[in-house]
Amino acid sequence: MQVFAFDWTAYGENLDHFRTNGEMPRLVRDHFDPSVAFHTYKNHVEAWIELEKQGFDGVAINEHHGTPFGLGNSPNLMAAALSQVTERLKILIYANLLPIHEPLRLAEELAMLDCMTNGRLIAGVGRGAPREYKIFNVPMSESRGRFNEAFEVMRRAWTDDRFSFDGEFYKFDDVSIWPRPMQQPHPPVWVPLTGSKETIEWAAAHDAAITPGIFPGPMREDTIRYFAQCQAKYGRTVDPNKISIMVDCYVADSKDQAVEEYGPHLMYLFNTLLRYDQVWQEDVKKQGYYSSTAFEHLRQGAKGTLAEDDTVFNEWTIDTVRGAAQQMPIGSADEVVERIIAECDDAGANNVLLVCNRGDIPHEMYLNQIRRIGQEVLPRLQAHNVAVVPHAEQRQAAE
Amino acid sequence: MQVFAFDWTAYGENLDHFRTNGEMPRLVRDHFDPSVAFHTYKNHVEAWIELEKQGFDGVAINEHHGTPFGLGNSPNLMAAALSQVTERLKILIYANLLPIHEPLRLAEELAMLDCMTNGRLIAGVGRGAPREYKIFNVPMSESRGRFNEAFEVMRRAWTDDRFSFDGEFYKFDDVSIWPRPMQQPHPPVWVPLTGSKETIEWAAAHDAAITPGIFPGPMREDTIRYFAQCQAKYGRTVDPNKISIMVDCYVADSKDQAVEEYGPHLMYLFNTLLRYDQVWQEDVKKQGYYSSTAFEHLRQGAKGTLAEDDTVFNEWTIDTVRGAAQQMPIGSADEVVERIIAECDDAGANNVLLVCNRGDIPHEMYLNQIRRIGQEVLPRLQAHNVAVVPHAEQRQAAE
Repeated sequence: MQVFAFDWTAYGENLDHFRTNGEMPRLVRDHFDPSVAFHTYKNHVEAWIELEKQGFDGVAINEHHGTPFGLGNSPNLMAAALSQVTERLKILIYANLLPIHEPLRLAEELAMLDCMTNGRLIAGVGRGAPREYKIFNVPMSESRGRFNEAFEVMRRAWTDDRFSFDGEFYKFDDVSIWPRPMQQPHPPVWVPLTGSKETIEWAAAHDAAITPGIFPGPMREDTIRYFAQCQAKYGRTVDPNKISIMVDCYVADSKDQAVEEYGPHLMYLFNTLLRYDQVWQEDVKKQGYYSSTAFEHLRQGAKGTLAEDDTVFNEWTIDTVRGAAQQMPIGSADEVVERIIAECDDAGANNVLLVCNRGDIPHEMYLNQIRRIGQEVLPRLQAHNVAVVPHAEQRQAAE
Repeated sequence: MQVFAFDWTAYGENLDHFRTNGEMPRLVRDHFDPSVAFHTYKNHVEAWIELEKQGFDGVAINEHHGTPFGLGNSPNLMAAALSQVTERLKILIYANLLPIHEPLRLAEELAMLDCMTNGRLIAGVGRGAPREYKIFNVPMSESRGRFNEAFEVMRRAWTDDRFSFDGEFYKFDDVSIWPRPMQQPHPPVWVPLTGSKETIEWAAAHDAAITPGIFPGPMREDTIRYFAQCQAKYGRTVDPNKISIMVDCYVADSKDQAVEEYGPHLMYLFNTLLRYDQVWQEDVKKQGYYSSTAFEHLRQGAKGTLAEDDTVFNEWTIDTVRGAAQQMPIGSADEVVERIIAECDDAGANNVLLVCNRGDIPHEMYLNQIRRIGQEVLPRLQAHNVAVVPHAEQRQAAE
């Protein structure tokens, strides 16, 4: 299978000392240390070079705004930075948030990046977290329409010699982009399926590679099942090479050591970074981010989205970490390998996105994890081939 | 003075073999060779590293769309690429075209770049060539209004802890960007003054660094004079450290040799690159790019803009080059130094942007020019200090 490291590029300093009465204020100029940001970018690029050295297949980076959770306001800039210092590593931008982008400019940027990286770009697309809509002042009720139109603009800019477009949100007249993408007809398109039924249908219609669900369990299974059903309408079966899952992992000599070393950083992730300036689920539903039928592909009781999962937004303690770690690829290299392979087999995913630098993990600790995973975990994962998508097969067998 | 190299990053292959009956067709997929684009980016980044080695103060890059004239659809991506392979070179993005950008995203990108480059960013802003408006389907009549609003959004995003904005084109509500710029209060702002009076007034109001006019002569002189008049309203005199001019130069052993070597590339620039898919001046005026008072600061007979200058858009032959070269810094190192210093003294510019890789100049020839200029020209320019702005002084003396 292909192994990527997924790197959120969190601001490199713990910000908890800015809390007042336990609450994190709006982060403004006085809280921002530009030299921390400089080193954050520099260190992460250095880590990505190390990923290439260790033989990882790729790195995944993403887009967030106005938050120390991730400094990739433009992951495209980070991909550009990486283009000149690596030669082989694939760069998965996961994802550019289509509804808050100007799509012609985005098509151009991704074409440039595909050329700058010598065809190493994977173009992830997504709708984005609700809080990004608030920042860019885009109504959540327009999210779906903008997503669909923006991708169509991109696709046509990439593939048509000349194109015009007359949409509700975007209009163009007789445009030919230059440069054009290196990969033909365009860079591979990946999409995370963390919520709506409509995105599953879109992914099937465009034969995109998918990342179904955040966690193993009913939501992921139902997503794969429904995706298979949609793919069948186009005469396609589900291909494990076009499924990826994301897993948090951490390698140490034992589970206890892993929890002790990594736990505080996971706690900072959940208690500070993920909670910062969050838009909560109730508002999201009110504002029309999800359609009325968005979850009808899920069985009764399956959680629809990350934001609905209480474990994510409740206060984490070291005991929460210890409890969660029992079921996670956090511990010895053998356990990490076995758990990741089991989860990939279950999902039918021949691609895995490893997250091993959560929260405010120091640079040296991240580099050490990359080296340790590179030596003790990576070869065994890459040697494993996932050829079957069980939840898709079950659907096909049941028909 | 400070010396920059201005690099348009033209597509690295001569495209004249695609002409049919002498005319260049719309360039589409069949004309595009991705490996040429890959090497164009790679070679230019390599050249910029050489600029740093030679001691240049900076590199200037720019934004163009849908044309082999310049592959920097997003010069910001190229600045990001450069951020990781240089340490000292200033990066002047000249310019991001405000009216066709989403300004909050642009403010974020430039803040990121300022951090990624450890504070080496110079943020050039401009309205852009009329043809870019056609591609992005933005009415030229909105250009001025969008420019003004976009800059205000950027400025407030950079400097205010939280900002809201309620403009005609852009609206935002309670936004705090993160990361924020490294340079305080924000990266230096430069603006080219190649046409309208309104841009001169804007530059004075914002105390921006300016590049007055494309060529020496009445238009440049009148621009500086009017800028000085506007600056006086704010109690400021014109600072040579905040004036730059751009000059085309080429160093060889003699003028004849320079014309012979560089001439064909200048001809390709004028006859092919600059003419490609051009929007002509008549249309520009009709569509409201210029206000009715845009040129009233110019004396009778002064050309207003680059596009009005016939020498630019007429067919060039090697004789045109030879004729032009008599008045240009093209020839021996001594002549190049003398002419550049004379032109900087006349303009009162303590910054110069050297263009020495026009058209389809091969990579090795560009590198050689960088080395030759670096050794024979650069030290003498850097040792020269321009302390007076004659055309501004004349105005002050006349009052």
